[in-house]
Formats: sequence, C-alpha cells, structure tokens
Amino acid sequence: MPAADSALKRLAEAYEKKEAKFLEAYFDCLRIPSVSSEPRYRDDMRECARWLVEHLSGAGFETRLWETGGHPVVFAESGPAEPSRPTVLIYNHYDVQPVDPVEAWETLPFEPTVRDGQVYARGAVDNKGQCLYVIQALKTLLDLDGRLPVKVKLCIDGEEESASPGLSKIVKDHGPELAADHLLLVDGGFASLESPSVGVGVRGIVSLRVEVVGSRGDLHSGTHGGVVYNPLHALVEILGRLRDEEGRITVPGFYDEVAALTEEERRQFDFHFNAARYEARFGAKPVGGERAYGPRESGTIRPTLEINGLAGGYGGDGFKTVIPARARANLSCRLVPNQDPEVIGGLVADFIKRQAPEGVEVRVSINPGMGRAVRNRPDAAVVQAAAQAYQDVLGRPCGFRLGGGSIPIMPLLMEASGAKAVLMGLSLDQDNVHAPNEHFGLDRLKMGCLTLARTLELLAET
Amino acid sequence: MPAADSALKRLAEAYEKKEAKFLEAYFDCLRIPSVSSEPRYRDDMRECARWLVEHLSGAGFETRLWETGGHPVVFAESGPAEPSRPTVLIYNHYDVQPVDPVEAWETLPFEPTVRDGQVYARGAVDNKGQCLYVIQALKTLLDLDGRLPVKVKLCIDGEEESASPGLSKIVKDHGPELAADHLLLVDGGFASLESPSVGVGVRGIVSLRVEVVGSRGDLHSGTHGGVVYNPLHALVEILGRLRDEEGRITVPGFYDEVAALTEEERRQFDFHFNAARYEARFGAKPVGGERAYGPRESGTIRPTLEINGLAGGYGGDGFKTVIPARARANLSCRLVPNQDPEVIGGLVADFIKRQAPEGVEVRVSINPGMGRAVRNRPDAAVVQAAAQAYQDVLGRPCGFRLGGGSIPIMPLLMEASGAKAVLMGLSLDQDNVHAPNEHFGLDRLKMGCLTLARTLELLAET
Repeated sequence: MPAADSALKRLAEAYEKKEAKFLEAYFDCLRIPSVSSEPRYRDDMRECARWLVEHLSGAGFETRLWETGGHPVVFAESGPAEPSRPTVLIYNHYDVQPVDPVEAWETLPFEPTVRDGQVYARGAVDNKGQCLYVIQALKTLLDLDGRLPVKVKLCIDGEEESASPGLSKIVKDHGPELAADHLLLVDGGFASLESPSVGVGVRGIVSLRVEVVGSRGDLHSGTHGGVVYNPLHALVEILGRLRDEEGRITVPGFYDEVAALTEEERRQFDFHFNAARYEARFGAKPVGGERAYGPRESGTIRPTLEINGLAGGYGGDGFKTVIPARARANLSCRLVPNQDPEVIGGLVADFIKRQAPEGVEVRVSINPGMGRAVRNRPDAAVVQAAAQAYQDVLGRPCGFRLGGGSIPIMPLLMEASGAKAVLMGLSLDQDNVHAPNEHFGLDRLKMGCLTLARTLELLAET
Repeated sequence: MPAADSALKRLAEAYEKKEAKFLEAYFDCLRIPSVSSEPRYRDDMRECARWLVEHLSGAGFETRLWETGGHPVVFAESGPAEPSRPTVLIYNHYDVQPVDPVEAWETLPFEPTVRDGQVYARGAVDNKGQCLYVIQALKTLLDLDGRLPVKVKLCIDGEEESASPGLSKIVKDHGPELAADHLLLVDGGFASLESPSVGVGVRGIVSLRVEVVGSRGDLHSGTHGGVVYNPLHALVEILGRLRDEEGRITVPGFYDEVAALTEEERRQFDFHFNAARYEARFGAKPVGGERAYGPRESGTIRPTLEINGLAGGYGGDGFKTVIPARARANLSCRLVPNQDPEVIGGLVADFIKRQAPEGVEVRVSINPGMGRAVRNRPDAAVVQAAAQAYQDVLGRPCGFRLGGGSIPIMPLLMEASGAKAVLMGLSLDQDNVHAPNEHFGLDRLKMGCLTLARTLELLAET
C-alpha cells in the first residue's frame, strides 16, 4: 500500500468513528441564522461566534474574539507543534448570505435537512460546511496523534459576505498573531469532482460610482427635449466610450502596469475554454472580452471594466415624459497583478470626468473596499501540498486555477501573515451557494476533512 | 368706447353677478377626487362625469356620456344657433393628476382653499378651472342673450392625464357629432400675463422600449467579467450612437420628412430665447439640441430623440458584483409636421436593432399612444379670434406659440371634426400644475370666462 493510501485509510477510519458527533455539531452551527448583512441577525452573529469559541476551546484550542466594530472575528491557535514544523494559517468565515426568497426553499434554511445524501441549509457549504470540516480535520489529527503535525492558526471571519470590512481594518494590527508560513483559504471549490483544482490567483477590484447632473429638477421631455442636455444621453455617450471595438478599455494608462504571463506561467495554467458548454449553461456566448484574448484569459489574467448598474429617469413599463435631473451608473474594474486599485480608479474617474459635455456636471467617486490581485506560483509548497491532497483523496490529477473574482482579504492576510497562500474548498457548481436550497454532500464533508488533514500532514514535511 | 371694450364690459358685469354661484360650483367639482390613473378613484371619476352632466344639463345643454372602456367622455351640445353661424368644438378634461406627495400640500388637495386670491386644489387649473370657466362663459352668454352666438359642442375627456387612450379609440366613430368649423383646446397657458400667446402647434410623439438581453440569469461580474458581453455595455454603446457631436440624431432617414419653416412662417413666430433666464430657472444650460439650431427652434420645430429612462443591474448606493441578464431603456421622439410616428418609430427601432453586438439580443418595441405633430397657420380664423380675445381682455399683444410637447388627441380631434384648432388657456408657470399646491387665481377665472365668451363672439362673425 503506498504511503498516501495508508495515511488516508488511517484518517478515514478516525473520521468515521466520530462522524455522527461531527454532524451533530455541524447541524447545531447551521441552526444559528448568522446573516451578517441584516441587522436583525446581530445577536445571532454573536451567538455563532461564541458557539465556535466553545467548540474550538473544547477541542483544546486557545480561542478569542477579535472585535472589529462590526461582527467579531474568531481567532484560534493550536498548542505547540514540534519547533521545526511550519505554521499554517487557515481562513474561513461563519457568516452566511441572506435567505430570500425564503419561499423558494423546500425545507427551512436554518433547519438542516438531509435528502439523498445532501445536507440542505443556508451555509451548508458556504462556509460553515467548509469551516467545520477544517475543524474536524484538526480534531481527527489530535485524536490520532495527540498533537497536530504543524502549528495551526484559525481565522474565522464574520463579515466575508460583506467584503470583510472589519477584518480588513484590523488585520495589520494582528500581524504577530497571524504570522505563518502557509495560508489556506478554505472557501472555494471547482466545477466538478472529476477535475479538482486549487486556486492560486484572484483578480483585484476597484469600484466607482458615476453621477451625471443636469437640471435642478426633473423636466418635461416635450417642453425641454432638444433644449437641455439630457443627463441620460451624457451618461450613455460617456460610458459608450469606455471600450473600443476590439473590447479594449480605452482609459489611457489602464493596461500600463499589467503583468504579462511568462511562458513558464502560461504552461502551468489551462486556458482552454469550452464555448459551447458555457453558452448552454449560461445562455450567452463568451464574446464580451478583448478580441486579442480567449474568454478564459479575459476572465482571469486580463483586467476588465464592467458597468454593474444604470439608473435614471423612468425605466419601468409604459412611458413617462421625463428628462431626469440626474443619471447614475455603478462600475467596477477587475485588476491583475501590478495594477494598483487606487491608481486605476483614479485613471477611470479622470477619463470619465474629462468626457463631460457642456451642460451637465459629471461626478465620479471611488468606493471603499478595493483590493489588489493575487497570483501565486503553482510551485509554492502550500499550493503543491493542497493539490497533492486533492489528488490523493479524489484520485484525480489536480489543476491550478486562476479566478476571475476578487477576495480583497486574501492579499491583506498574505501581507499580515507573511505566508504564501492557496485557495481550497469542495464547493461544486450545483450546490446553490448564495441561492435557495443551498446544499452540501455528506461525502464531501468527509473528503474535506481528509484533504485538510492530508494537506497539513504534507506541509509538516516542508 | 371701442366695440371690444363695450362687449367686455357687458360680459364682465354679467360674470360678476354670478361669480359667487360659479365659484360654489367650481369648488364642488374640485372636491371630487377624479384621479384617472389610480384605480381606487374609479367611482369618483364617474361621479365627476355625472356632476358635469348635471351641471351642463341644468344650463340647457343636451349632454351624454360616451363610454370608452376606461373613464367616460362627457359630450354636450348647445341648442341651435342662427343657421349661418359656425360650430365651435371645445376640448377640456375633468380628470386630474395624482396628488403625491400629499404631505407637501399646505391644505388638502381635494378641499379647495382660497389664500391671497388663489384657489388651492388639485385640478384648480388643470383642467377643472379652465373647464369650468369655459362652461361659465357659455352660461354668461346664455344669460345675456338667451342663446349662444355660435353652435357649441363640448368634449370633456376623462383620461387626458393618461394620454387619452379611450377618446383616441372612439373619436373616429363620433365624427358626425364632433363635426365643427373651429376647435378650441382649453388646457394650456403661457409664461406670464405680460406676454399672452395662443398655441398653434404641438410636436408629435412616438416612444419606444429597448431591452438588451444577455445571459439567462444575472452573473457574477468577477467570474464572468470579460467573458460575456455585458448587456449594460451593449446598451450604452448602442444608445451612445444615437446622436452625433453636432447633436443630430444619427438614425438614417430621421430628418427626411421634416417640414422646414417657410420664411413667412418664420416671421410669424418668435424664436428668441433668453439662455441666462432659462439657466437661472432650471439650473441647466440650454445646450442639448442640434448645434445648427437655437434652443427655441430645437424645442419646437425640430424633432428630438430623448432617453427617458435607463435601468439594469444595481444602480443604488454601494455596489453589487453583478452583470445583469437584461438592461432596459425607454426612449421617445418628439416629431414635427410630415413625420409619421409609426415610420419614425420603425426607423429608430431598426437602427437600434442593427447595432446589436454579437453576444446579446436587442429587442425594441414601439409603445401605443403615438401622435402626429400639428402646426396651424396663425392666420386661421380660430387662431385670430382667440388671439384677439386675449388681446382685448389682457390689454397686451398676443403672440403665436409653437409647443414642444405633444397632445396626441389634438390631430385626432381635428381630423374627426374637420375643424382648424387653437390651444388656449391661462395657466401660468407659477401655478404648480401637476405638483403639490396647484393653484389658480380668482382673477384668471374671470379672465378665462371673458376670453372664451369673447372668442365665441368673434367667431360668430367669421
């Protein structure tokens, strides 16, 4: 029996012994409606944080709450490992998305229910499922060996679903406590168990709000049509100039700092894209990016500028004879390494303001909550260990993934801890994450526990 | 004493004798909350129509309700005039605008209150005030002479504030009853009593709804940004191409049928525009039209295309990482004589559809409720009579006005009746028409009665 097989067998047997108790704790945690974005769940948020403190303290972790001004962060440390062993910081979150529309749920979102091997509940996957299998992995290793193969620190966010404003603010102050060699962010997944992958990159983000102001109040489009400069026309004319016919962003300097992939990097990632499958799944062709790049490249290694919302005048059914006083747009840019969100936000804002025609005023503001891109090397020890663990547990080769989305806390945690990072997780496309009837497989709870334990064992050897 | 003066003196004395009783009826009518656009006022609409039937029957008119499928039209005819005298059709409406925000009213909108010589109530001007002084003019003439100087027909709409869908539908069927030589639409006004004018033109209108459809559902702007063609980008790119840098509409054929003003027509209208006064009043410069035309020309004798609303994605405060599945716009064109609303609507729709980039579907529909432009000659007898009446009553020269707005029922009534038309009325800018605290002056109720009576007397001589 190869070493990996015997190691996994040992972990699996230990997991199975405690599975019933583990599921009981998991269900208890799912019953706490920890919706971070809705003020009425404020007490439930704190109850969930306290539940985690107790659960982790009971397992022998030194645990405390970090106050953030919003919902607290749960921070826990394992007892000392052998001094030569590395320190591993693991990031999860205990807050969940709202449940609306609640009538679309087949069973109550905060009453976990098992059907066909799937646990249905808000947070079943995102991120209580993934958080609790991480803790279960630690408990399993402690049960087996009396101590962990590495020093472990857990950082469990309470505001991930709101872009982590609290943790972002305090992360620098907690640098010494967060210091680590490796960082696992266990909040992700991949399309299918057939083709596992770990994430090594995310795009950065900066978002902007544009407001075009015309007259003092709304005007009648008959009397004033052809007289005032309609703010809605100014808005579409300005925004219509942000991309050229090649799909390139026209803002001067937008691409100046973009880090190109080296040939070596390019070989490490798979930029193949199945356009037909994409269209079948989402009902739209993947033709929105720069013509010089394929959809996978445009969605990961190239920066974008997208309008996220337009509002002004009367957009409903029927018709109103109005020239509105104001028109608005929300925009965001996804960024790649070397692009500074503040710099890019400034370039976009300046470009938009320069387009203002006579007769209207154009105001642009940059939202807080920006974040830099991350692109790690697949050959980093933490990335290799995580990939090896998935390969061992799932029996399939594990790829390296560059994400199109943004995790502003990721570069901040990397900086504060000094660790290299990898994005892990077993969420699949079909899990209804952020939607009604979110669910997670009992099989994947076990896989998650085994991959995490296995990753820590592999990291012990680095 | 000139003839006009003695005629007016006679009318004024008769008006004053009945003023108290007239105001009592006017207040009764204002107390009926005849808001045509809100279903909860359905019974009140019918009560108001019945009130008018009684009021007109009591004055000796043969009166009936025309059912339209919506709110009824009140139609009334005077007894026979001398056979050689012309027939005058007068258009008013009894429905009023909603009162929201009701908390902004200083006194209740359906409890008429007099302050400083002004009657405050919804409909005080628009159009119960103007409708009732018309009726009072007829009663005054009947009191004085036992019969009217001309044959009069009254058509009192119940859906003017909703673009007259019912009357538009049935107007052709009532052609024989509506047949007339002259048509007075008494639903307008001018900026100030210092410079009265009568309206001889309105612009036509056609409105469209544009929908850009991308993916099957909303998508995450991180994962899908740079992959799909964002419908919001398609929308701004398409709409941004509708006007060129000279302010001209770029839709091929848009200006093909535009009737230019003859030199003679040009001399009859005043295209002077006080830009500084406009900016002080509305807070915006009058620079939105075609550069080749002044603001008054752009707002009256040139067609326009205006976006009236944009909607899609998240346009509120803060930020959502969304690429919406759909984006929408509402557009409208104001038209000038010779432009066919259906043709222009089709040209605009075709142009927009042709701009659709690969990756999105662009749907355009033309709304019902379109209308043609009207531009009458100032030397028409009905226009001259109305202008003379204002000049006699107000003691100021009366101008001829081309309006920028649209009254789709105007060309339809002209066609059905065979009459030449003029737009009359004594609404002023400060009256808060369509807004909270609508009000009308007691002095103008009298002026209105006198101008109408005087207009009919003058028309008797044509």
